[in-house]
Amino acid sequence: MKSAAAIMSGLTLSKSPPRSAYLSSYSPHRCFSFFSLSLPIYRSLNSMKRPPIHVSHSNPMFIVRNSSSSSSGSSSITAKPSSEMRKHHNGSSKGIDRDQKLTALRELFGKPGINIDAYIIPSQDAHQSEFIAECYMRRAYISGFTGSAGTAVVTKHKAALWTDGRYFLQAEKQLSSSWILMRAGNWGVPNTTEWLNDVLAPGGRIGIDPFLFSSDAVNELKEAVAKSNHELVYLYDVNLVDEVWKESRPMPPNKPIRLHDLKFAGVDVSTKLSNLRSELTNAGSSAIVISMLDEVAWLLNLRGNDVPHSPVMYAYLIVEINAAKLFVDKSKVTPEVNDYLKKAGIELKPYDSILSEIKSLAARGAHLWLDTSSVNAAIVSTYATACDKFLEGLGNNSKSKGKNLSGAPSAFCKSSPISLAKAVKNDAELEGMRNSHLRDAAALAEFWSWLEEEMSKKTVLTEVEVSDKLLEFRSSQSGFVDTSFDTISGSGANGAIIHYRAEPESCSIVDTQKLFLLDSGAQYLDGTTDITRTVHFGQPSERQKECFTRVLQGHIALDQAVFPENTPGFVLDAFARSSLWKVGLDYRHGTGHGVGAALNVHEGPQSISFRFGNMTPLLKGMIISNEPGYYEDHAFGIRIENLLFVKEVNTPNRFGGITYIGFEKLTFVPIQTKLVDLTLLSAAEVDWLNDYHSQVWEKVSSLVEGSAREWLWNNTRPVVKP
Amino acid sequence: MKSAAAIMSGLTLSKSPPRSAYLSSYSPHRCFSFFSLSLPIYRSLNSMKRPPIHVSHSNPMFIVRNSSSSSSGSSSITAKPSSEMRKHHNGSSKGIDRDQKLTALRELFGKPGINIDAYIIPSQDAHQSEFIAECYMRRAYISGFTGSAGTAVVTKHKAALWTDGRYFLQAEKQLSSSWILMRAGNWGVPNTTEWLNDVLAPGGRIGIDPFLFSSDAVNELKEAVAKSNHELVYLYDVNLVDEVWKESRPMPPNKPIRLHDLKFAGVDVSTKLSNLRSELTNAGSSAIVISMLDEVAWLLNLRGNDVPHSPVMYAYLIVEINAAKLFVDKSKVTPEVNDYLKKAGIELKPYDSILSEIKSLAARGAHLWLDTSSVNAAIVSTYATACDKFLEGLGNNSKSKGKNLSGAPSAFCKSSPISLAKAVKNDAELEGMRNSHLRDAAALAEFWSWLEEEMSKKTVLTEVEVSDKLLEFRSSQSGFVDTSFDTISGSGANGAIIHYRAEPESCSIVDTQKLFLLDSGAQYLDGTTDITRTVHFGQPSERQKECFTRVLQGHIALDQAVFPENTPGFVLDAFARSSLWKVGLDYRHGTGHGVGAALNVHEGPQSISFRFGNMTPLLKGMIISNEPGYYEDHAFGIRIENLLFVKEVNTPNRFGGITYIGFEKLTFVPIQTKLVDLTLLSAAEVDWLNDYHSQVWEKVSSLVEGSAREWLWNNTRPVVKP
Repeated sequence: MKSAAAIMSGLTLSKSPPRSAYLSSYSPHRCFSFFSLSLPIYRSLNSMKRPPIHVSHSNPMFIVRNSSSSSSGSSSITAKPSSEMRKHHNGSSKGIDRDQKLTALRELFGKPGINIDAYIIPSQDAHQSEFIAECYMRRAYISGFTGSAGTAVVTKHKAALWTDGRYFLQAEKQLSSSWILMRAGNWGVPNTTEWLNDVLAPGGRIGIDPFLFSSDAVNELKEAVAKSNHELVYLYDVNLVDEVWKESRPMPPNKPIRLHDLKFAGVDVSTKLSNLRSELTNAGSSAIVISMLDEVAWLLNLRGNDVPHSPVMYAYLIVEINAAKLFVDKSKVTPEVNDYLKKAGIELKPYDSILSEIKSLAARGAHLWLDTSSVNAAIVSTYATACDKFLEGLGNNSKSKGKNLSGAPSAFCKSSPISLAKAVKNDAELEGMRNSHLRDAAALAEFWSWLEEEMSKKTVLTEVEVSDKLLEFRSSQSGFVDTSFDTISGSGANGAIIHYRAEPESCSIVDTQKLFLLDSGAQYLDGTTDITRTVHFGQPSERQKECFTRVLQGHIALDQAVFPENTPGFVLDAFARSSLWKVGLDYRHGTGHGVGAALNVHEGPQSISFRFGNMTPLLKGMIISNEPGYYEDHAFGIRIENLLFVKEVNTPNRFGGITYIGFEKLTFVPIQTKLVDLTLLSAAEVDWLNDYHSQVWEKVSSLVEGSAREWLWNNTRPVVKP
Repeated sequence: MKSAAAIMSGLTLSKSPPRSAYLSSYSPHRCFSFFSLSLPIYRSLNSMKRPPIHVSHSNPMFIVRNSSSSSSGSSSITAKPSSEMRKHHNGSSKGIDRDQKLTALRELFGKPGINIDAYIIPSQDAHQSEFIAECYMRRAYISGFTGSAGTAVVTKHKAALWTDGRYFLQAEKQLSSSWILMRAGNWGVPNTTEWLNDVLAPGGRIGIDPFLFSSDAVNELKEAVAKSNHELVYLYDVNLVDEVWKESRPMPPNKPIRLHDLKFAGVDVSTKLSNLRSELTNAGSSAIVISMLDEVAWLLNLRGNDVPHSPVMYAYLIVEINAAKLFVDKSKVTPEVNDYLKKAGIELKPYDSILSEIKSLAARGAHLWLDTSSVNAAIVSTYATACDKFLEGLGNNSKSKGKNLSGAPSAFCKSSPISLAKAVKNDAELEGMRNSHLRDAAALAEFWSWLEEEMSKKTVLTEVEVSDKLLEFRSSQSGFVDTSFDTISGSGANGAIIHYRAEPESCSIVDTQKLFLLDSGAQYLDGTTDITRTVHFGQPSERQKECFTRVLQGHIALDQAVFPENTPGFVLDAFARSSLWKVGLDYRHGTGHGVGAALNVHEGPQSISFRFGNMTPLLKGMIISNEPGYYEDHAFGIRIENLLFVKEVNTPNRFGGITYIGFEKLTFVPIQTKLVDLTLLSAAEVDWLNDYHSQVWEKVSSLVEGSAREWLWNNTRPVVKP
């Protein structure tokens, strides 16, 4: 799917999830504007520096609110068809109306212990998650704007909402006249802090919920508002939007946590903890706070069900050399999981007690490893204060602060060691990914066979209906859990909207006259998928065929790339664009993002992008998407996406005594050859296509029957260059 | 030629010439070790941070010493056959012997006004030149080591010389037992400052000649030695090596300066000065010091003859809004040049008076533009001191320093605006480059035709004899001035030594059993060339053919690349390696360097390299080499190099409303098809080869006659894929 690739490239400046793209250990440089193909959408966010903007596929309207919590655990299917889910959220929000909300919020500004002149409401949860639970969608609640990316800022007299070009129309519709829409990236539009510095009298107090900003983000924010002598006020104890939301606020999710089977995880929790502790020791650290939800899930071999699309649970984890504490709502912990954690030596603590544990760590003289790009400011700041207090207690003067006095607590900032460990898949994880991709391919063969048949019957189907049907096919595959992101089902011009989300009321019909782009994925118990195919059910134009063929050539070039070990992804990005560039075409997003194994569909730290800031080498065992595209505004969109895993290539030479690296495909679904202009392909490219289709048939045919099998046969026949 | 590509990539950390590779305006990031293909040679220099190492093809032994200065000016041919030139320099150095030099140098350490514990002797001249005059080869004089790259450090009791892997053998032979050879890059070998910090008692005084280090280099040096509380002592008035060298030191070069014809320069000096002054004004600056010799030559449309290979003269230029001063030895200024400078409003000043003018600038309250990566520390430091003095004179206390008080002098650091202006060629410069490349191609056709004939006659020819003969053919082309660098003439295993220099006494025979790599170039009045061809006069092995073909595929891929405007060169580097990577091969140097128009064969700021530090986009009008290679140690070397210029491509689309950029060839010399394994080439690659050869015939055939014309015909016939 596209979004992450974009996040991994153009959108990274906002330090919003997936934050792994900005992890500093491998990417010391964050340069964002040298490249002319940094195009409006991305540039817009770059200029909208702080506070962070949450960029994701998730849309508040798409969340299953109050869905009955299933106690069956691991095998429960939580995904619902789009059409059904949307029903829950049509109509206006209940409770007080939007302008009353603003009034109520402002009334809190003057309360004792608060006393602020402005309040910033970002899109984030406390864990920099890409997909978040509805109870944390405070920006959507307070502003009425439900797009995935946006920041609201409310002063005593004004309210403004920043979003990017994807959401200008939606925001115009959803915001009341009390709100100023800030079209981020448009010429002359200030960013949030510039605006605050402009509208507030100097020396103002700007409130934030310190849980909702990474420590790094807060530091930049602080610096920016300091220019007008404003003070950033951390409101630890109360989120002002929640105070307004009151009883109509959804309950925090409380779905049961399940064990992630060792046969899929490959490495047990005690080994993972032991490896982590070795890393801590080597770094001279005694403890680490892990706050990214997928890192907690991966490390503990647990899976949750708190947010859509990502099988994670809200939790923090603190690992010390001789202890580990999981901060999680106990109602989610089944007896089985409870036993499991006990055996692993992991103590359960209430989710809300994280800060008191942080203070306790300082009191115990911990040397704490903090990834300040992901850990929130509440935690980092609490630890810093507690350290100061400790030193004051020792009677040290201010000069000795910062030195690592024996027995005194301290902290150091370094990117989380879990990120890279999680990205490099072990054999069991790879096996699960391979298997789930084959079942996913079977579902897709059934789906495409069905859709082609419906198209030939001239059945009228909307983009949403098509996407719902795909979910139906996937749901019947064993181990299916959820979609891995909101399906992008774009017919004709909608395919050119990179983050398109079909809505039942307004979406287009899928027909035989237009290109149809379908980017979708699933969570299975053993793996996570993400695939895009673009097809035409009638007669594609020569233009469409040329563009499709050039995208395919880029896809093939990247798929076939071999390169020296330690090569960062950006080095390969041009391979995917070269054929488009030759005729003056390009696409405005990165080419590849990491994918978790039965975890988040977007993960870092690796990426393949025209942005050169991410130095993470592509390492054996990593998974990466290969998704070049081409988008012709108001006309059509093309994207061809497979997932690949990184492997050693057995090259006949090993110049420099090093290993050479390449890719192997995980995705096995036919590419529509009707869209290929064979005269443009080289003989080697034709061979690639035929070889791929022969593999698809070989690997998937036994998993499908009847018309789907027939469709698969028909769509895996070799082509011949004229 | 290879060297520069290496310099532009792996070697850049040393900030040695061509310094344009580190110009900071386009390359804020200087990361040098992320990439595994940063291999020994380059890594060695990276670890040898300061003082800078001069990396170039120039070899002290290769300089025409005491050659009679020609007064004929512009058309004089100064190049001599290698064999002849080397005669001048065989035998041991005259004057005191090597160990006496060290003794004499150390005696100076204790002199009043000097009083130092160590002295650093780098390879540089005062202008960060790639090729330097013999009188400035102080490191070679004092140590006896004549390789192009090295730094000598002498303490009261020890003497050490750092060089890289290319020169270990040579240094072992040339250094006396008084010297410690520091094999830079080898494990455990300290760099110069680490060594000084180790061997000197803390609080030592380390002397340098501040003219021989860029200001940036000195600052890093200062920081490094401060760790042991050493002080860096600037010896402005005396170079201690010169004091030892005394009367046997060669005179500074005094060849006449000539006018560079406007028909080749394209833009007259007053326009160039006026453009520069606009840039100064826009930057809020009132003056600039230009110290790179090619920048002075380019800006003034003058050419000199002070160093081998580069048509430049030793000079500084200061341009103010209403004045310009050229600091140059007047004996080089002919009456014609004198008149020309007067007309252009450029005042002549003695070369040695630069520092007094710098003081005067400060006294006049200049706001000075300084490129501290190239301007030497003597100038920058003198200006800083003079500014301080001015402020003290005003009675300001130290706190107000640095603020730009009205009337007070100040400075700001920014990369020289000349570098980019010079890199983007105008139509006249391009025309001169095109024309000189055709004459050069004619000389090469004559040469290859001759050599092939000699080979068929089994004539015994050494690498040096072959290279001398090439010079003879080039010399007879109109407008020939000099070689543009030391020819790399490498037969068999010598071809695998990237910086190989054949010596008459030790070089190999060129024969029909081995591959022969020839990298050479020339300076003409209208342009500068640089070309590499690799040939076999007998029957190449299958291995050689495969390697050659893969290098050729890389060459073709880069040649054919089309890309969005503002793309930096490193994005394209992988195109040139891809075919080699597929079978586990690679090469340990960059792929392309900039080339001056009738100026230095290596110039920046652009480059094409696997190093991503250079963000300079490839701009229309720039010239860049395309020189992938492959080197099999102790066996053979392959490189195929053409020069290209950057041009707009008339693509059928212009996605993003931008221009797409590509290359056009300047070099038209056949590529030996005998070495091509046609089964590996795609149809498009075969077309490229045939099309190139058809252009070679079309453009060059009218410039050659007889057997050369026949050779050209035979070597431009189309090939057919089997």
